[in-house]
Amino acid sequence: MNRAVIARVIGLILGIEAICMLPSFAIALATSGADAEAFAISVTLCAVLSLLLSRVRAKSRRFQTRDGFVAVALCWIVLGLSGAIPYALCGFSYVDAVFETVSGFTTTGATIVPAPSALPRGLQFWRALTQWMGGMGVLVMVLALLPSLGEGSVNLMKAESPGPISSKLMPKTSETARSLYIIYIALTLAETVILRVAGMPLFDSLTTSFTTISTGGFSVRDASIAYYQSEAINWIIVVFMFVSGVNFGVLFQAQRRQWKQAICSEELRWYSLITAGAVALIAADLVVKAGHGVYESISQSAFQVVTLMTTTGYATADFDLWPYFSKAVLILVMFVGGCAGSTAGGVKVSRVVILWKDLRRELRRILHTREVRPLTLEGERVAEGTVSSVSVFFFAYILITLLCTAIVSLEEPDFTTAFTAALTCISNVGPGFALVGPTRNFAFMTALSKVALTVTMLLGRLEIMPLLVLLFPGAWKR
Amino acid sequence: MNRAVIARVIGLILGIEAICMLPSFAIALATSGADAEAFAISVTLCAVLSLLLSRVRAKSRRFQTRDGFVAVALCWIVLGLSGAIPYALCGFSYVDAVFETVSGFTTTGATIVPAPSALPRGLQFWRALTQWMGGMGVLVMVLALLPSLGEGSVNLMKAESPGPISSKLMPKTSETARSLYIIYIALTLAETVILRVAGMPLFDSLTTSFTTISTGGFSVRDASIAYYQSEAINWIIVVFMFVSGVNFGVLFQAQRRQWKQAICSEELRWYSLITAGAVALIAADLVVKAGHGVYESISQSAFQVVTLMTTTGYATADFDLWPYFSKAVLILVMFVGGCAGSTAGGVKVSRVVILWKDLRRELRRILHTREVRPLTLEGERVAEGTVSSVSVFFFAYILITLLCTAIVSLEEPDFTTAFTAALTCISNVGPGFALVGPTRNFAFMTALSKVALTVTMLLGRLEIMPLLVLLFPGAWKR
Repeated sequence: MNRAVIARVIGLILGIEAICMLPSFAIALATSGADAEAFAISVTLCAVLSLLLSRVRAKSRRFQTRDGFVAVALCWIVLGLSGAIPYALCGFSYVDAVFETVSGFTTTGATIVPAPSALPRGLQFWRALTQWMGGMGVLVMVLALLPSLGEGSVNLMKAESPGPISSKLMPKTSETARSLYIIYIALTLAETVILRVAGMPLFDSLTTSFTTISTGGFSVRDASIAYYQSEAINWIIVVFMFVSGVNFGVLFQAQRRQWKQAICSEELRWYSLITAGAVALIAADLVVKAGHGVYESISQSAFQVVTLMTTTGYATADFDLWPYFSKAVLILVMFVGGCAGSTAGGVKVSRVVILWKDLRRELRRILHTREVRPLTLEGERVAEGTVSSVSVFFFAYILITLLCTAIVSLEEPDFTTAFTAALTCISNVGPGFALVGPTRNFAFMTALSKVALTVTMLLGRLEIMPLLVLLFPGAWKR
Repeated sequence: MNRAVIARVIGLILGIEAICMLPSFAIALATSGADAEAFAISVTLCAVLSLLLSRVRAKSRRFQTRDGFVAVALCWIVLGLSGAIPYALCGFSYVDAVFETVSGFTTTGATIVPAPSALPRGLQFWRALTQWMGGMGVLVMVLALLPSLGEGSVNLMKAESPGPISSKLMPKTSETARSLYIIYIALTLAETVILRVAGMPLFDSLTTSFTTISTGGFSVRDASIAYYQSEAINWIIVVFMFVSGVNFGVLFQAQRRQWKQAICSEELRWYSLITAGAVALIAADLVVKAGHGVYESISQSAFQVVTLMTTTGYATADFDLWPYFSKAVLILVMFVGGCAGSTAGGVKVSRVVILWKDLRRELRRILHTREVRPLTLEGERVAEGTVSSVSVFFFAYILITLLCTAIVSLEEPDFTTAFTAALTCISNVGPGFALVGPTRNFAFMTALSKVALTVTMLLGRLEIMPLLVLLFPGAWKR
């Protein structure tokens, strides 16, 4: 392990974090909020730590895959622990503060704040901004800003970007990172302007855009998006959530007007298909079982399917009151999640497609002995090593979900609460069902459950392996 | 597809079924039960069909892997449909009758009979016997009795025996099948005698042994094993359930006094470890949360863990009233199931071990790039194709469980009921939680749910692929 380089990367991350806290500090000052001091102290702490770590000198620039995984895991742990300082200084317990911060950075959106509207303005802004920072990845941000990290940068990118296959949009990692952030910023600004035009206050527009494009799901309003009571706003958000759940490689092609290639994306087609199928099933269920009107059913179904499948987690309706079939479909899409290379969580559409194709291939193998065709995705052959990694990932995903369910069960909620809490956290969605439903929050839970769910959120966002690697002594060897 | 051979195999199965119905018919006659006519008609029907099919002449004896899968799938469907006739003639709806029969043959033990003690004696016996027939496999029975099936027999064995790797105990398939049945019968007789000595009535001893050794879980008593109120009987059953969850290859070694090899079985060690761990966790939970005494907790925990992990599904306590952590652990062991090559269902210990080792290997691969060590089990290298099949199986298992949950949800039970109903059926356990808990039954469900769960039981027992293969047109080609 190249400890010096990892220390420097952590230093950079803390520096970025300190800078990102400045707008919140400014807002806190401008609103004379109780959080001004909290941010002053937090910024100072992060900056000092960052400066100290920047003094570490690396003897070697060698930076392997393993180092990328360890660096990303440690950075995210540090982000969670340090980003929580403003909350802690505003009176939250440290466990709650870390839960909320990690829920922010991982773009989960599960909250321990019963009334976000009562938070000081600066903290509201920080809460939304953590999601925006985490959505595209904080290390990707570092790479976009400081391309000087050299050969190791691709390993950082690989470890932080979601999906089974990491694709390079541009020849250089730093250029890729920059193109991603350009699209990310453009989407965020576009949504802010459109929401403002649709009548949302500016502060709400900006923070909502932060949490939409990152598929985070925090809201500054207690009733989430339901507060605005506007069909126009709902549909605008549906569109932006859906777009944010698309592979940014596809958005990159679209931006370059390579429409044909973008539309031909196999993952995009599956993603659209699953979304449309789930919307139709739930809308039908709402019409038949709940007796809703057709338009209302489609509108509510579309919003909730897209928000849960992209793992955003806003609420416009209390879907916990919906018929059980609708809820079962929602749980299925929560497992699936968005596309690889998007800001969404979950298993990811491309992984599910690979697993599905592998199942079909296995059946073909039984029917036509000895014939083993390679598996293809996006018209290209998927390496057997990738198929195997996807399977391992899926097993680990289910295992962690069930283990987290067992730990949360220690505090005796019902099974639905425990299971959907674990699922919503590993998939980085936000709300679950029953006691952690869309109109509720995670504040009631014991510290043990909160810690377990915090770890589960990190496991979900970093796609499990980086954090698990830390458990091996081999990761710590020089 | 070799249709003629498959037709002959189905004919054989129907013949075996007709013969196996004779004891029930005798009992029905002896007790002047209302079921005597039902069995007379059923036996005749099965026998006639069997004779008709035996007239089919095969042109070719070629019998491929694919044919084995198709034959096994069709045989099991035919078994379910024809074995249901006695129930249907005794007044059950045909859907209920098929549910109960498939639950029998697949050794699930989920029931739509609220009071089994009220059933006529002949039907009680048939209900227990279906489990015993299904436990070791009906086709394995055919192979043991009629070794004349030739080259194709190994493919039948492969498709019906549970587990990722099918091992031959003896050079010839028919000899393997016979050795398996010898152990199976010996265990059944041993348990019958011991239970009788412990004070259980003879009819109960025999039927309970049928459903223990097959890890089925049907009982002739409404309160299941709790009825006997005997600690001795509970512990005897725990031991026999545990043994029946062990790979019969290991029991075969033990029978040949190859103690060292038997004890050294890696799967056996994992199986014992998981069982012991789950018993300890639940016992501790019962002591701490439910305030039970230490011995009572250990005794109840041991019984329920073993009965659910071996996918038997008897009840001595209403574990649905246990603390949620205990329930979460029970759900985990229901997923795992028993050893490969045993009569138990579930994912199987060896598959879970392979998945676990594959996860460790993936982490090692990240730590030490390029190093890919082969995976080992029982000291032998596991072929990459097997690892891949195991992963595919696991994905299909979870997918089917969630899809079945969605279908059952259509009738609006709570999520726990729908999910554990699906899980208990795919794992061939029997009881679930909430509305399908150990003191309840599946009678209240809609026909759609019952059909979905029936299919799920078959998928679980045949380890998914044989039934899915039927969906491919390629399976039906000559």
